[in-house]
This record gives sequence, C-alpha cells and structure tokens, in this order.
Amino acid sequence: MSVPPMIASLPDLLIEPVVRRALEEDLGRTGDITAQACIPADAHMRAVFAARKEGRIAGLDCARIALRLLDPHAVFEPVVRDGEDAEPGLPLARIEGNARAVLAAERTALNLMQRLSGIATLTRAYVRAVEGTGARITDTRKTTPGLRALEKYAVRCGGALSHRLGLDDAILIKDNHLAVCGGVRPALERARAAAGHLVKIELEVDSLAQLEEALPLKPDVIMLDNFALSDLRRAVQMTAGRVVLEASGGVNFDTVRAIAETGVDVISVGALTHSAPALDIGLDAA
Amino acid sequence: MSVPPMIASLPDLLIEPVVRRALEEDLGRTGDITAQACIPADAHMRAVFAARKEGRIAGLDCARIALRLLDPHAVFEPVVRDGEDAEPGLPLARIEGNARAVLAAERTALNLMQRLSGIATLTRAYVRAVEGTGARITDTRKTTPGLRALEKYAVRCGGALSHRLGLDDAILIKDNHLAVCGGVRPALERARAAAGHLVKIELEVDSLAQLEEALPLKPDVIMLDNFALSDLRRAVQMTAGRVVLEASGGVNFDTVRAIAETGVDVISVGALTHSAPALDIGLDAA
Amino acid sequence: MSVPPMIASLPDLLIEPVVRRALEEDLGRTGDITAQACIPADAHMRAVFAARKEGRIAGLDCARIALRLLDPHAVFEPVVRDGEDAEPGLPLARIEGNARAVLAAERTALNLMQRLSGIATLTRAYVRAVEGTGARITDTRKTTPGLRALEKYAVRCGGALSHRLGLDDAILIKDNHLAVCGGVRPALERARAAAGHLVKIELEVDSLAQLEEALPLKPDVIMLDNFALSDLRRAVQMTAGRVVLEASGGVNFDTVRAIAETGVDVISVGALTHSAPALDIGLDAA
Amino acid sequence: MSVPPMIASLPDLLIEPVVRRALEEDLGRTGDITAQACIPADAHMRAVFAARKEGRIAGLDCARIALRLLDPHAVFEPVVRDGEDAEPGLPLARIEGNARAVLAAERTALNLMQRLSGIATLTRAYVRAVEGTGARITDTRKTTPGLRALEKYAVRCGGALSHRLGLDDAILIKDNHLAVCGGVRPALERARAAAGHLVKIELEVDSLAQLEEALPLKPDVIMLDNFALSDLRRAVQMTAGRVVLEASGGVNFDTVRAIAETGVDVISVGALTHSAPALDIGLDAA
Amino acid sequence: MSVPPMIASLPDLLIEPVVRRALEEDLGRTGDITAQACIPADAHMRAVFAARKEGRIAGLDCARIALRLLDPHAVFEPVVRDGEDAEPGLPLARIEGNARAVLAAERTALNLMQRLSGIATLTRAYVRAVEGTGARITDTRKTTPGLRALEKYAVRCGGALSHRLGLDDAILIKDNHLAVCGGVRPALERARAAAGHLVKIELEVDSLAQLEEALPLKPDVIMLDNFALSDLRRAVQMTAGRVVLEASGGVNFDTVRAIAETGVDVISVGALTHSAPALDIGLDAA
Amino acid sequence: MSVPPMIASLPDLLIEPVVRRALEEDLGRTGDITAQACIPADAHMRAVFAARKEGRIAGLDCARIALRLLDPHAVFEPVVRDGEDAEPGLPLARIEGNARAVLAAERTALNLMQRLSGIATLTRAYVRAVEGTGARITDTRKTTPGLRALEKYAVRCGGALSHRLGLDDAILIKDNHLAVCGGVRPALERARAAAGHLVKIELEVDSLAQLEEALPLKPDVIMLDNFALSDLRRAVQMTAGRVVLEASGGVNFDTVRAIAETGVDVISVGALTHSAPALDIGLDAA
Repeated sequence: MSVPPMIASLPDLLIEPVVRRALEEDLGRTGDITAQACIPADAHMRAVFAARKEGRIAGLDCARIALRLLDPHAVFEPVVRDGEDAEPGLPLARIEGNARAVLAAERTALNLMQRLSGIATLTRAYVRAVEGTGARITDTRKTTPGLRALEKYAVRCGGALSHRLGLDDAILIKDNHLAVCGGVRPALERARAAAGHLVKIELEVDSLAQLEEALPLKPDVIMLDNFALSDLRRAVQMTAGRVVLEASGGVNFDTVRAIAETGVDVISVGALTHSAPALDIGLDAA
Repeated sequence: MSVPPMIASLPDLLIEPVVRRALEEDLGRTGDITAQACIPADAHMRAVFAARKEGRIAGLDCARIALRLLDPHAVFEPVVRDGEDAEPGLPLARIEGNARAVLAAERTALNLMQRLSGIATLTRAYVRAVEGTGARITDTRKTTPGLRALEKYAVRCGGALSHRLGLDDAILIKDNHLAVCGGVRPALERARAAAGHLVKIELEVDSLAQLEEALPLKPDVIMLDNFALSDLRRAVQMTAGRVVLEASGGVNFDTVRAIAETGVDVISVGALTHSAPALDIGLDAA
Repeated sequence: MSVPPMIASLPDLLIEPVVRRALEEDLGRTGDITAQACIPADAHMRAVFAARKEGRIAGLDCARIALRLLDPHAVFEPVVRDGEDAEPGLPLARIEGNARAVLAAERTALNLMQRLSGIATLTRAYVRAVEGTGARITDTRKTTPGLRALEKYAVRCGGALSHRLGLDDAILIKDNHLAVCGGVRPALERARAAAGHLVKIELEVDSLAQLEEALPLKPDVIMLDNFALSDLRRAVQMTAGRVVLEASGGVNFDTVRAIAETGVDVISVGALTHSAPALDIGLDAA
Repeated sequence: MSVPPMIASLPDLLIEPVVRRALEEDLGRTGDITAQACIPADAHMRAVFAARKEGRIAGLDCARIALRLLDPHAVFEPVVRDGEDAEPGLPLARIEGNARAVLAAERTALNLMQRLSGIATLTRAYVRAVEGTGARITDTRKTTPGLRALEKYAVRCGGALSHRLGLDDAILIKDNHLAVCGGVRPALERARAAAGHLVKIELEVDSLAQLEEALPLKPDVIMLDNFALSDLRRAVQMTAGRVVLEASGGVNFDTVRAIAETGVDVISVGALTHSAPALDIGLDAA
Repeated sequence: MSVPPMIASLPDLLIEPVVRRALEEDLGRTGDITAQACIPADAHMRAVFAARKEGRIAGLDCARIALRLLDPHAVFEPVVRDGEDAEPGLPLARIEGNARAVLAAERTALNLMQRLSGIATLTRAYVRAVEGTGARITDTRKTTPGLRALEKYAVRCGGALSHRLGLDDAILIKDNHLAVCGGVRPALERARAAAGHLVKIELEVDSLAQLEEALPLKPDVIMLDNFALSDLRRAVQMTAGRVVLEASGGVNFDTVRAIAETGVDVISVGALTHSAPALDIGLDAA
Repeated sequence: MSVPPMIASLPDLLIEPVVRRALEEDLGRTGDITAQACIPADAHMRAVFAARKEGRIAGLDCARIALRLLDPHAVFEPVVRDGEDAEPGLPLARIEGNARAVLAAERTALNLMQRLSGIATLTRAYVRAVEGTGARITDTRKTTPGLRALEKYAVRCGGALSHRLGLDDAILIKDNHLAVCGGVRPALERARAAAGHLVKIELEVDSLAQLEEALPLKPDVIMLDNFALSDLRRAVQMTAGRVVLEASGGVNFDTVRAIAETGVDVISVGALTHSAPALDIGLDAA
C-alpha cells in the first residue's frame, strides 16, 4: 500500500486524566517543597527536552499536558513529532513557563515520555527486523495497568499495529473456551451468535490438527501459539491466504525474522510493552 | 542490625483503586465478550499462579484484589509471600472462583504481578551485588505513572530502601535551586526555614569543591551526582561519617559493586523501576 | 445457526458505578428525609418487583445492585432472568431488607429497569418484525449518555446485535471522511493502514454508484444509507454476498419488514435506544 | 402573574461532568479511529446544528461544552436559545473548530440535545393542552439515571415546573409511610418534627376520606393519586384553596385537559422524562 | 408537638466517600509506615472510644466506616447513639480488629467524631438557651467544605433544625437580588414564577419598612437580618403569625435568649458550624 | 537565621479539587435557584472581599479558584497576600465577573478563607506567645478531613511549622508500638530497618526514664508527652541538644510560654486546626 499510516495522537481528553494522576502522585499532599523553599513564586524559566540516546519518540503530548496542568500559560514548542526519530542531544521540545511549574512537571513529563519512547524504540527495532517480509508486528494486552491506551499508541508510533484494546472489542477464543464449549466448531458458533457484525473473531490453536479443523469455519484470524518454524510454514501453506495468521509466543530478536519469513501475516510481541527499557531523555535548563 | 525489616504490604484501600482502574481498562465498556459467549455465567474454575522463571515475588495482593473485585466470593490462597523467592513452576497462589471472573481478572493480575516481581527481582540483583559492603540500594522517582507506591513497595520486596516518595516528603536541593538561591549556604538556609522538623534535607553536589562547601552546613544527606570512583572515595574520606552520602548516576551492574566499595552509604538506581523487565508468571487452570 | 446466543450480563464492576451515581443523584445531600422522619432505622420490609405490562425484561442486575448498595445484607431473588418475557402482574424479583434501604433504592431500580426493559421490548418487536428473513436488527450510537453499555446490553436482551460500541472499536467511513480523503479508495487505504488486524472497517455509501466503486475494495461491511427499497434490492444483487450489507435510515415498523425482505444482512435502528418508551414496572410491598 | 420565568441554564460546572462522561464513553480507549485514519490532525471544519422537525429546544449548553472539551478554541455560536421553538431546517447553532474534534463531539452533542429537546417538546405539548386552566404541569423522579438535573431543566424549558429534585429536598409521605406511622396525623407530626423550616411537606392520599382527614392538618401539598375526575372535582371543592392540590397517575394526552379543568393546581406527568421520544436534530457540514 | 424527631443517620453510601477521602489523606502514598515497621501484619487489638469531656455525640457512623474500610471484618459495637449525651470517661463504642487497621483508622475516626460532636454539643447549648420559648435554632451554609451534610446532621443531633442544604433546595432573596429585580414585589414574583410547588421562598429584610412591604406578598419565611431586639418584637407583632420569622445576625450566647423571647420562630446561628471547638474524644487500647 | 521562610502557596492543581467539591456541595443538583430566578444570565458585578476583624490571612487562592471555576473570565485582584495581616474593613481582594457566578462562589470562597484565616490567626497568636524563646510552634494530624494540606498551609501562613503530613512521611513511635515491639530499642531498630534514608524517626516518651533510655539510640526527634514543666526542663538538660525535643499535650495560651521557656525545640498544638474559630470575612458589592 502506498499510503502511509498517520500517527494519530490520542485526544487530550483521554491523556489528561493519566497525566493529572501522575502529577498528583508526585506532588503528594503539598507539592514541591524544595521549589517552594528555594524558587520565588513568580520565577520563570526556559528549558529543553532532549534525548540522551537515539530513539523513536512518543509521548510529547504527555509532556505538554503535564506542563500546562501546572502552568496554563506555559509555552510548549515541539521540535519533533511523535513517531519521528530523535538524535542524541538534539531538542525534542522547547518549553517556557513558571519555574516552579516547570520543575514540578519535569519528572512526570519525563517518566511518561521515557517509557513511551522506550516502547516506540523497541517496537521500531522489531518492525525493522521483519522489514521486507509481509509480516506486521503487533502488541498484546501485557501493558502497564493504567497506561494501556498510551502504550498501544507508542507501539503505533514505533510502526506496528495494535492488537485488540481489551476484552470487549474483539473475540479471542483460547483453550479454556474450547474446553468448556466442547471444541472449535461449537465455540466458533457461540462466538458468532454473540458477536455483532463489527466484531472480529480470532481463534488460538496449538497444533496443525487444530488449524485444519478451524480453517473451514473461517474465523477472521487464527493465532498459532508457540508453533515451531516448520509448523508455521506448514500452517501458511495450509491456510493459503484464506484467514489472517498470527504467530505468537517465543518471539524475540533471535527468532522474529525467521518467524516473519514463514509467511505469517502478524507477529505479536509481549515484550514491546512489558519489558521495554526506558529511552533516556532529559530536561535541560536553557 | 539484627532485626530484619518486615515486608509491609500496602493497605488494600490504596491498592484497590489501581487494580480497579486496571480492570476497567481491560474490561472496556462491556467486559470479556469471549467468555460471555463461550463460558456459562455460573461456571466455576480453579487455577494456579506460577512463576515461569526464578525470581523475587511482589504483588500477590494485587492478584487477590483483582480476583475479588470480579468475584467477591472467590478463594485466593497464597503459597508464597511477597518478598520471598519463587522457583520456576512452583505455585505462587491457588485460586478458585467464577470462571468468567477468573478469566477476566487473569491479565490484570498478571500484568501487575509480573511488573512488580520484575522490579523486585532486579532490585534483589543489585542488593546482592553490593552485599558485604555497607552500601544500601535505593530507588528514584523514575517510576511508572500511577504505580509509584506499588513500585517502591516492590523495591522494598527486593531488599532495597525507598528514596523519597515524591516532591513533598523530603527536600532535595539541585543545581537549579542553587542557581536561583545563590549558592549552597543560602539554599540550605531557605530549606531549613521552610522545612518542618520531620523533613530531611538532601543536597545534590557535583564536585568535591561543592561537597567541601556543604559539609559544615550539615544537610541530612548529600547526593554525589555522577562522581568518578576516585572522587567518591575522596568524598567518603572528607565526610568521615558526618552526613549520609548517596551516590547517583551511571549506576549499572558493571559499576555498582565498585561504587559500593568506595564507602558511600546509599546508591540510587533509576533502572530498578524504569527499565526492569517483567518476571514471567502465568496462570494455569488446575 | 443452531446455537442460541447466551444473554451475557455485564460484570457488576461495570454496572455498579452507574447505579451508584443514580442513587447519589436521588439521595442528594442527606438521603430520603421522608423515610428518615417516618420509618424506624431498623424497620424491615419485603417487596416484589412486578411488570404492569407484558414485555421483555432487562436490568435486573441494576435493581439488585441498587438494593445492595444501600443494604449489603438485603435479599434479592430474581424470578425471571434478563432476556425473558414477563407477564403483567407476575413477579420479576422478590426482595427483602432494611425498609429505608428498600424505599430509597426503589426509584433508582425502577428507573433503570423500566428504561432497559423498554428498550428490550421495543427491540423484540423489531426482531419479530423481520423474523424469517435473513436480516438481523442492530443498534446505533444514539444512546443515553452514561448508559451506553447498559442500553446496548438491553438491545441484546431484545434479541438484536450490538453495532460498534463507540468511536474506537471499529472504523466507519462516512461522507465527511470521503470528502477529506478524496474518495472511496484512498479512504479505505488510509483506514487499512491504520487499523489493527482485529478491527473491522465499514463504509457508508449513499448511492449504487458508490457501492459499485466500493465492492472490489472489500470493506468488511457496507452501510446503505437511506436507500430506496428498489435500490436495496439492487445492492443485494450487486454484492452477491461478498460483503455484509447494513441498511440504515428511515427504519420504522412500517418499513422494517420490507427492508429486511430485500436481502440485506443487518438493519440498524436508532429508535431502539433514543425513543423507546419505558416499560411499566412497579414495586409492591409484600 | 405578569413576569415570565427566566429559562435559567444550569452552571457549566454541573453540566461538564455529564458531558465529559458521555464523551469518554463514546471515545473509548483511543478515540475516533476513523477520523485519526482519514482526517488530518490540523484539519478545520464548520458545521451547523439544525432541527429536522419542529420542536422546543433544550441542551445547547451541552453541545457547546462537548465541542469545547475536545477543542478549547472551537467557536460555538447559538442561533436560538434553550426554551425557544425551532423550525425544521433552520440552524440552532453554528460551530467551527478542529475537524477531528467536531466529528468526535457530534454524537455526544446530538444525543444530549435530542433527548433534552425531546423532553422539552413533549412538555410543551402538555403545557399547551392545559392552557387557560389554572393547572401547572410538573415532572417526577422518573428520570434517566445520571441526567436528572438536565432532564428537569428540559422540563422547565418546555414551560412546566420542577417537582422535588430527589429524596432530600422535600418530604413526600406515601402509603408505606402512613402504614408504619399509623395514619395521617402521626405521619405529618413526625414529618414536621424532622423538617427544617424551608422544607415543604406533601402528602399522598388515595381517597376523599383520606383527603378529609388530611385537610385540617395543612400539609403544604396534597397529592391526589389516581383519582377519578369526579373525585378530583370534589377534592377541589373540599379543599377550597387551603392547600395546593396535585393530581397524579393516569395522565396522558387524552386525560390531561379534563384533569386540569377539575381545578387542581398541579398535574405531574412521568412520561415527560421516562418516555419522551428524541427530537430529530442533525449536524450539517457548512 | 408530642412526637420527638428521630435522629436519622445519613445513609452509609453518602458518608463513605467522605471517610474514604479522609483515610486516603492520612495514609498518603504508602500508609502507616510506623505500624508497618513495628506491628505484625496479623496482630489484633481491642480498643474503646471514650469522651474526655461531657458532650453530645455525633459521628459514630464515621468511626465505624473508617474502621471497616481498613478491616472489613472488624467489630464495632456502639455503646451510645448519635444524639445522646456522653459522660467523660465512659465508652462510646468498643472496637476490635486488625491492629494496623485500628491504629490507621484512629485519627480519621477521631477527627470526624470530635468535630461533629463538637458541633452537636455547641448546638445543644444554644437549644437549651432558648428552651421554653417558641423559638427553634437553625444552622447556616457556613459549613466546612466537603462536610456540609455531616455537619448539618450534627446540628440535628444537637436538637436544632437544618436550614436549606445549599443554593438549590430553597429560594432566599437578599439585597443583591432586590436591587437587580427592582424591589420586593418583582423579586417575589420572579421567584414564584421559577419555583416549583415544593420549593419554599424566604425573603431577607433589613428594616420594618421592608417587612411591611413584604408581609402582604406572603413569602414562606422572612429573615430579619440584624434587627434590634425592639424591632424584632415589633416585627413579631406586625406579622401576627402569618409568616415564619427567622432572626439572623449577631446571635451569640449573650443575645440568643433575648432574641428568642421576642417571639421569632427561628434563629439561625453561623457559629454552630464555623466555630465549634472539637469535643475531646480519645481511643484507648482495651 | 536571617532568611525568612517564603509563604509558598500550594499548586492550584491540588487546591482545585477541594474547591470544586465545595462548590458542587453548595450548588447541589441545579445550582443557585434564587439567582437563576432573579439575576439576568448576563448581569455583571464587582465586589470586594474584606475582613471584618483584624487577622492573619490565608486562602486567597481558594477564593480565586472558586470564582474562576464558575466564571473563567472573572477578574480576581488580590490586595494582600496569604501570610499577611489584614485590618478590619480593608479590602483583601477585588473581584469582577458574571453576577450569578460571583454570588454562587461567595459562600464557598468565604467558608474556605474564613476557616484558613482563622487557623492562621490562631497560629499567629501562639507564635507570638513564644517569641524570643527558641521554641517553634507546630501542628498535628488533628485536621479537618479533606482539608489537611490547606490547613497545614494555613498554619505555615500563621508562622508555624508543619508536623508530618500523615502516616507515611515520617515515623512516630508511640506506646502501642513500644508495647508490641518490646521496648524502645527494638522499636527503634525495627523503624530504622524499614525507613528510607530520607525518613525521620520520632519517638514519643512519657517519662524521664524513657527519655534516658532513648537518648543514646538517637532518634531524630523525641516527643515529650504531657510532661510537667519541671520534667521538660530536666529533659532539656539531659538531652543537651543531641536530639530535637518536641513538647506535646496540655498546650494552651496559659501554658505555652512557660513550656517554650523550658528550652524545648518544638511545641505541637492540636487546637490550631481542630478548634480555631473562623475569621470573620465578608464580600461586599462594590
């Protein structure tokens, strides 16, 4: 496809409660007592957010909102945009505002940007690792409690796709469900009877035999859980494009390229959100 | 000291809002549509939380609360306690309850336990790395927004100490404050005038010269920021036990032992919370 | 399909905040001052919820939760279940508890049950009107602010399917999007580039020409907006089952059967939620 | 009386939480994914709210607040005011703002305006039906959970009066209270002993005999519940203006005029809020 | 009247959010670190709430809820009831539960009980001061932000009546309103046109001339603001029982009896809530 | 010390929720019905906050925020600053804005300013009473639930210091803890093992013998609870400056000077927050 996806930032209305909670958590009961003791109430300062290491940026909106929640008149001028790559030492955004507000917002802004940019940077690495294959990288529900929408947004900034957002926006039938329903066919029938016409149904299988049983029943997506490479290849052949195939389990930098080359459509990687190291970003007085 | 610290779990009243928010985030608008389609409303199941890898456990209360918020009558029987080490494959807790509730709580419970146990496990490694020296490991404010109290608790489960909780429970004077106040002495005087008698004052210095200026003014703690090992050693000599010394900056597994051996009292490690990989924990139907 | 859909009630965790807000709204600052003046604090009473008219019931969980929020020890024994039909005068549920709690919960319980049962009853009528055709009835986003999940649940109790839950769980491309993107093809390409593999894409068209342009591009669903019956029939022929077709606009009891008989797959009806009259239900002291 | 009542809009502080909740409900976790895919982040648009049918308008503030919550710089220019009548096709308000914001606010704004205007329009019809009699129309507590203040405001926009707002701002003694207290006199005595001097006391009676018992005890209002027309007339004679009389039960368009002509002071109509069909209003790109 | 008013406790649903907020405020981010360090997690303790001074008790429910929020299994056995008088040293309630929970709830429970009992005790003194006159004591809106419903409840425990709860449950016309409306008559007409039939209308006057103008217009209550005793007596004569008269302004223990003896119906006292000293209550380990 | 403490106002982010809750509490469900009836929606007014009595001012930010929450365009011009003394009749702040907003904000603004200024004024009196001695006045946790941060801020405006903010920012070992731990030494050891390096430890003792036991163990602060003056003097001698000494219990205007003259460092006074009478402040139309 020739049209690149837009990096679509989340509405401020959805980000603000997360940032507000983070500020309240840091300010505690009485706010920044060091600044209150040492910085005059009307002091003003300028500063620059800068990446200390190369990486993919995500979360600038969080920094802007953190600053504005403490100083509604503060200036926030982004230099890069979410989804772009930043060079070490180059500015990400310039800010100016009440000095107490800038200092009190600093840690919250950095904590959010560092985590989200860390996720975007790790995602970018996985996306690059499969470049040229037809496979797309996607995330999981293994996200930080309270930050799911932001973390999945960071994954998109890294160039990957979002898997379902939670338990209610797509059906994913796993072994427990199959056991209760009595097999693939009744489980899929139950799912179809319950699902609205805008809900996709994914089925997790753990063997080629189960895949074979599932294919004629045409779920929208079949997840191949912990398949060996040879079985992934065989699954791709058997499926022949009739259903979207998602490889899952045991994905890391050593394995992802080979998995992608089996011809699966989607590869889900839990580590994108549960184990991404923070990207080192700092705030320098200017 | 002969009395070991108790691992003191947080009050449920403080954990519950975090877990509730995480569940709401996963349930979305209508809850687990897969289970609603495939699992009878009154089905019942038993399951076991088990670590897939060896590690230090933290966050069992989160799992219990997640389960109980969805099924108030569910049984949660911990096998280990927070702050203990778990063997791969051995059970952490046995649960029993409404099947839909168990399946819907699973991901939230795991996301919290995996993250907190990941932090506790990483912390344990740092604590072990300095064993036998007089240095204690401590954390920073580089925590996940919304999870600070839980993450600092996980650090304590890992055997380290908590640094200040936020901006309001201790004073930490940094370069920006010094610049505005006009130096170490006026900054400390301002801090002392503002601080209650139960608030400690820490001063960050970035050179031995600054340390020398600060020592006679007796802040409670002096943070030696990004000091070379030789300078840390010199600082310890100069201080001679009059003030608590905290080493900060550039701490990792390659450097932490040597830093500890300089004789500093406390070493703060941002990575404990901003870059700990999750500990792999799963829920197995039993 | 031979497997009937389960009526899957929402988790209490999602219903409770709605009921709590409704109770707080009714109790105001100091609660039921009439009962406080006239009913002893420890008086006890039994009562029965009963439908005054025949209808399809939805919302019994709301009544139970309202009662329990005011008296945690109250007894709530449902006689029918959501999704079942109730005869006038026959009991829906028997309750017993503190008299002040029962009287204070009464209006909130009834307001929710009456509205949701009203929606279920109206939905049932639409579902019956198309019985025997292949068409399914679905709802819209024209729901009462604050009650969407409950109202869409009531629609399912009435035998229809839920359309998307909101703006984030499916893509629905309308005229404004087409105008900005420059037509059907680029709009669909943009949508596909942005959408995860578990997100369905629906396209709204307002003419057969637009349908013809859209069909080879294979969106998951095409909405035929305000099509004449003859055009609906022609659209079904042209589509030949390749895409799910949804008829929308101008649907009422006079038209819905004829629309269904054109062969469309889904018919969306805004009135299900925006204009359903309440079902008359009362609480009788027993 | 020669002074017409002002239509007094609610404070934004009270409306905003309702609108915010409605937006969050529609935006879900990640907001409008269609607009994010298809509409540039900085696109701008103008549009016009217009009634599709004649009706009494209520809820313009909700539309303004919905828009501004998503785009604080958006322009909202009302053409009519709440409490005025709108002609089909004529504009109610002109808006201009960020295109994604306008599209995301649209459904929430319409859902609120349509419901409130539907209530105002139905109320207007009842008010007109009793025009020329001395009777006033009033509402009940049969409102939509979460929307009571807005719906009672819409009733006032329709020209009627508000009944009590909830359980705590007036006393309404019903059969249950009489039964517990042992009759009209002790119930009224208990009520008077508990009520502050700014709280009115209403008594519900279901027979002329009960009315006769109540009149000398002078409650502020007596509700005649489900009285036949002849009994209403007799009640008016007996009361002779000493107490405000409210007729309740069985009120609809077939009966309301005759009830009003009996001479009662107030007629309460539950349908105003529990069964008003939405007024058809749309948003047209301009 | 021979029927004494019941002291009607507020519903727990309304008290719990206040108590929860108070506990969160005291627990901060990580709870009681002293108890976590010094008291084993499973220690148990018994204790007794006891008044240190004689006084009227209010707020026992707050203590019970504080305890139960921290230990759902705790035992709370009240010995006296709200609205009763307590002797110094005698127990108010016996409690038993988890030791950490008891110690953490202690301050919150006492802060609420002490304040509310302080208000009840001060109110009792005013009520006694006017005993034997026909005057009733009432409160004002000068309450502690966040505690109005509880404080007005404490006033009722003290034997006085509640004035209006806030700005929306009764009309109180003051000088600003008169100035804008152009006098007493148009202001009252506007008020009557807007008010529902269950809303009382009070008019504040500051002279006998204004009273004379107001009396024929029959507001429900007239507030005589800062009247001299002689003018109060004259006002009572002029009014002759046609309207409820409320004296306001300059009320204290030196003046209240004389004011009551003028024959006014109600005397409002701001100090009941804005300046009541706390009643000394303690918690003793048992 | 020559550097006076700055009066550091709390961040608006922390004050706003308190003010918003107070406004919602006063506005109730539908806001100021008197103003809605009598004041045109677009009327404008100017007014002045003025102290009726001499006192120390605290809480101007609360008044500003209350006004702005109801009219974002209102003008608020402070004439004095928190921590300054006000003369009776002189203006504290001039305001201008929408008349309905000004009138609706009035009571909330006054309730907060009066209480906080009352606390600041009472605190000032205690601070003056010990002037010239080395003792500092401090507060306790006996604060109004929901207002702790504001009330402790008011204490600082009065010239005193804040004690710990709650249960989590300092350790305070009392008799219960000593009993469980088995004495002063094990209790302090447990506390030290648990406390981070930025947490101070205070020990409460009730006899000189206990003080003697505690001194060599060097807690940061020792609280002398209910010591006679002679014992306080003896305690100061014994301590000889090695530990901060806090006198507590039985402190009032009759005793505070003598207590201060014993040489203790800090005197805590519960009455500052639990029994301060409100400072009389009014709002005058200008």
